[in-house]
Amino acid sequence: MKGDGHDVDINIGTNYSKPKELHWLLRRIFILSWIRSYDREKAVSDLIAGITLGMTIIPQSIAYAALAGLSSEYGLYSAFIGSIIYVFFGTIAQVSIGPTSLMAIMVLQFCSDKPVQFVIVLAFLAGLVEFLMGVLRLGFIVNFIPTPVTKAFTTGTSLIVALAQVKNLLGIKHKGIPTPKQFFDKIEFADATVGIVCMIVLLTLRQLSSIKFKNKTDTTRRLKKVLWYISISRNALVVFTCGLIAFLWIRKSSIEAVPFALSSPVSSGLPKLQLPPFSFTYENRTYAFIDVCRELGSAIVVVPIVAVLANVAIAKAFVKDGQLDASQEMLTLGLCNLAGSFFSAMPTCGAFTRSAVSQASGVRTPMAGIYTGIIVLSALSILTPYFQYIPKSSLSAVLIAAVIFMVDFTPIMTLWRTSKKDFFSWTGCLVVCLVAGVEMGLLYGIVLNMIFVILRLGNPEIEVKLKQCNNITYVHIEPLSDIYFSGVDYLRTELRATAAMYRYDFPIVLDCSRFMLFDATFVDMITSTAKELNDQQVLLILQSLSGKYQPLLQSSSNIHFAINPLTAEDFNVATNQTVIEKLK
Amino acid sequence: MKGDGHDVDINIGTNYSKPKELHWLLRRIFILSWIRSYDREKAVSDLIAGITLGMTIIPQSIAYAALAGLSSEYGLYSAFIGSIIYVFFGTIAQVSIGPTSLMAIMVLQFCSDKPVQFVIVLAFLAGLVEFLMGVLRLGFIVNFIPTPVTKAFTTGTSLIVALAQVKNLLGIKHKGIPTPKQFFDKIEFADATVGIVCMIVLLTLRQLSSIKFKNKTDTTRRLKKVLWYISISRNALVVFTCGLIAFLWIRKSSIEAVPFALSSPVSSGLPKLQLPPFSFTYENRTYAFIDVCRELGSAIVVVPIVAVLANVAIAKAFVKDGQLDASQEMLTLGLCNLAGSFFSAMPTCGAFTRSAVSQASGVRTPMAGIYTGIIVLSALSILTPYFQYIPKSSLSAVLIAAVIFMVDFTPIMTLWRTSKKDFFSWTGCLVVCLVAGVEMGLLYGIVLNMIFVILRLGNPEIEVKLKQCNNITYVHIEPLSDIYFSGVDYLRTELRATAAMYRYDFPIVLDCSRFMLFDATFVDMITSTAKELNDQQVLLILQSLSGKYQPLLQSSSNIHFAINPLTAEDFNVATNQTVIEKLK
Repeated sequence: MKGDGHDVDINIGTNYSKPKELHWLLRRIFILSWIRSYDREKAVSDLIAGITLGMTIIPQSIAYAALAGLSSEYGLYSAFIGSIIYVFFGTIAQVSIGPTSLMAIMVLQFCSDKPVQFVIVLAFLAGLVEFLMGVLRLGFIVNFIPTPVTKAFTTGTSLIVALAQVKNLLGIKHKGIPTPKQFFDKIEFADATVGIVCMIVLLTLRQLSSIKFKNKTDTTRRLKKVLWYISISRNALVVFTCGLIAFLWIRKSSIEAVPFALSSPVSSGLPKLQLPPFSFTYENRTYAFIDVCRELGSAIVVVPIVAVLANVAIAKAFVKDGQLDASQEMLTLGLCNLAGSFFSAMPTCGAFTRSAVSQASGVRTPMAGIYTGIIVLSALSILTPYFQYIPKSSLSAVLIAAVIFMVDFTPIMTLWRTSKKDFFSWTGCLVVCLVAGVEMGLLYGIVLNMIFVILRLGNPEIEVKLKQCNNITYVHIEPLSDIYFSGVDYLRTELRATAAMYRYDFPIVLDCSRFMLFDATFVDMITSTAKELNDQQVLLILQSLSGKYQPLLQSSSNIHFAINPLTAEDFNVATNQTVIEKLK
Repeated sequence: MKGDGHDVDINIGTNYSKPKELHWLLRRIFILSWIRSYDREKAVSDLIAGITLGMTIIPQSIAYAALAGLSSEYGLYSAFIGSIIYVFFGTIAQVSIGPTSLMAIMVLQFCSDKPVQFVIVLAFLAGLVEFLMGVLRLGFIVNFIPTPVTKAFTTGTSLIVALAQVKNLLGIKHKGIPTPKQFFDKIEFADATVGIVCMIVLLTLRQLSSIKFKNKTDTTRRLKKVLWYISISRNALVVFTCGLIAFLWIRKSSIEAVPFALSSPVSSGLPKLQLPPFSFTYENRTYAFIDVCRELGSAIVVVPIVAVLANVAIAKAFVKDGQLDASQEMLTLGLCNLAGSFFSAMPTCGAFTRSAVSQASGVRTPMAGIYTGIIVLSALSILTPYFQYIPKSSLSAVLIAAVIFMVDFTPIMTLWRTSKKDFFSWTGCLVVCLVAGVEMGLLYGIVLNMIFVILRLGNPEIEVKLKQCNNITYVHIEPLSDIYFSGVDYLRTELRATAAMYRYDFPIVLDCSRFMLFDATFVDMITSTAKELNDQQVLLILQSLSGKYQPLLQSSSNIHFAINPLTAEDFNVATNQTVIEKLK
């Protein structure tokens, strides 16, 4: 510790060493790291969450496929493949890979008016890029999403989802944003009743798990467990009960008699394994793979980047204590899309809504995806006729109840006091999310914070002191923060100003220990400054310049390499020289 | 110096102090800083360069106005205003503000099919944004253009200019890129002859100034001076001579008899001072200022950013020893455009070609702009009928001879050896410049170098050591490079791994002196790590955390503030605590 002279480095022998790690490739199959500790309790939690998620993902997949301009089976294929692959490679229990509004909008933007084969090839190429990003360990980009941005993204996305679902909850059939009058005029009584009752039931059941008993007997302990099960399966229970009521109602009278809106019918048929359509013929035109790539253009890069960014932000919102292996998540997302393209799937990524529902349903491991996958597969085959009985407003109630607890406005108070930068990160990101979409909000947050770093890097702290060494007075210039190429000009100005201020009377010692990523910009600054100072008969001494960079300067003349550490004798060389400590 | 115990800080009194600086506002009128040392020699050089530049800028202005879809006077107005304003505020002799191909393309992109008033309002708004960028001292962005990128930009732009002028030099009339056969078939003998003769004359005259005489008498000294004048006025001489020949030829026979292509006629008329057309009526539609802004949209931001980036890159290529006040350049560019919009000018910026011609004509100060401005004004009034006699190929010869010496491929050899990053900056930037335009090349270079910084920031060096203090063994974790929010996750992982490796046996001391821009991301990491370690009964001590950041952590429980420096007693507090040195 500073000022404490008793500090000593000690060698404690080989008792402590880093634990041996599995082979890199084996570690990629992430299921191996948790499957051995998988027990019945986790299995039950995952089963409940998986089934709940299955009932959420089916209507979502149909809706997002429609939004992308595709028929419903493409959405369901994607949901199935995403859920299954994630079990083996995914790291975060709450993440569910499948169709999302973001990917649907991207597909619409890049593939509208094009045959469906383009969408599948896009899934393949996006998957390839995501996979490569994972292999190249680009997961570090997650570090560039600061905490306030993650929080604002979470709140913003939750608000968007909740607001979007209010219309379905109340049975309002209105395209675009309704005026308050339209809003109240168009509320359907039956839908609103179902929706609001579902909401009340969900919020009540949510409280069950936090009931406390005075006496702790075996009975109360068992009762507590039952209440906990009911609480976490509340989403599934509500949807199932509503579906059953609708089913019985229809059997008693007819489908027209049901006063509230039901889900869209599911088209049946299992996904087939086949190569992605790399080349195909459509409307008498033959497309080669290269044609498809050319027409997709920037989509091949934009789609995976947006998917990875959204996925990583969602993962960061749900992961505990920041233990996020983002490269593994990229790899997994890539595999989901690559595998998906062999089953005619559209591009996929994680969805915030599904993660919130999983979380609210007590998910424990990615194993839940197995059950979700089975439900989706059943929906595509045997359960096809039954899924249309689920009332739309009951599903909206589930989504709203899941996301509403993720809305958190408390940062607005604390961040203003603690850091203006963080305050503007948070509020700006939230506003941009709400106004221009979540991907733009994320981008805003990342760019804003990068700008602050850039500003800081362009203005390094530099300490200038007059020092003496064996009665030789010299100017000591020492950067106090790391200098990258962007700080070089500032340092050059400081050097020049300092030399002029002391009227070129003293030798100048520049401490180079904080030079980072030493490159041509540094070399250029050092040689031009050395030349200027040499012209003024000022001795320039470069101190602590890493040995590996010294050869880059050897081409310049007037450079004298001295032994390390420098001594008073080094100040006695000709003043039209630059001295560099020889070895670090 | 390291290892030298005799170093002492000394106080040398008040003999040395920073020179008093002029008032900020006064320093903005940059002419005041050099006008007092302006002498006859500089005036002659500037006169020659100014006249040469005038003869270059006139055909350029006409061509770029046409490229932007405007009639020629708009280009000439811009050239006049840009040249005059730069004299008073500009810092670099070689820079010439006026119409450029880049700005012409931007205008075409954002204002095609719109009335000309849009272009003038765009000039006003772009000028305003550039001016504000200067006032906000955003000049630091110049530091983010590394040396190899500046070099590649210079070479790339020179190549583009030279290649584009070869067609004019040889009289080839072919739209787009000709095949080799088309190229040779379409060479016009007369134009090519004029062009090549001009080239040979220019390159020969260029050598005149470097002729060495054996005897140094008064005669040889005077002869040397005459040769030097001829050498630097070679561009003006060549253009004037060619124009004279064409003029005499036409007087003798007719304009049809001249076998080579001449410049376009200049439309006469002086620029009028009037408010920019903030609101106007065009084809029965009235445009309010807000309508114009809305229709211009992103152009209001994109145009000034591109202009500033190009301007700064050109300035950086010509400035000596990196003494570039980029904020002043932004301010000046802003003033040029603001003033221009009051004289119906199109958006302007510096042009690489003109800087090269100025340089080749021996320019010394921005005063050259006065002569250029006068020539342009004359072209618009009295000289109108004469400018069309200049042969196109003679102007091409001037441009090619000016830029060809800026092409420099030597970095390709040295950079590969010295730094792979710099090698890819240089080659990549050059290729992108040639393929996708100079603004994309610049962007590539800046972004690539930023990515390397980002990568480095995401992987800070961290030193882990087992140390002892009064027989208490502790783990000392010390970042060796600055940590920004992007390095926090890496540090968290390292902390966690280290604690696990030592089986939670020892207290952990984290040195926080390298934390930069301390914010919510740091607070989040520290509180969550402290909680984790507290759960494992490990004492966490935060060392050298700047005093101003400590209040941010006070809301967390389990935090104990100790006096600074820490002593052995601080290790004796309860292990489920985090200790922070109280004051730095």
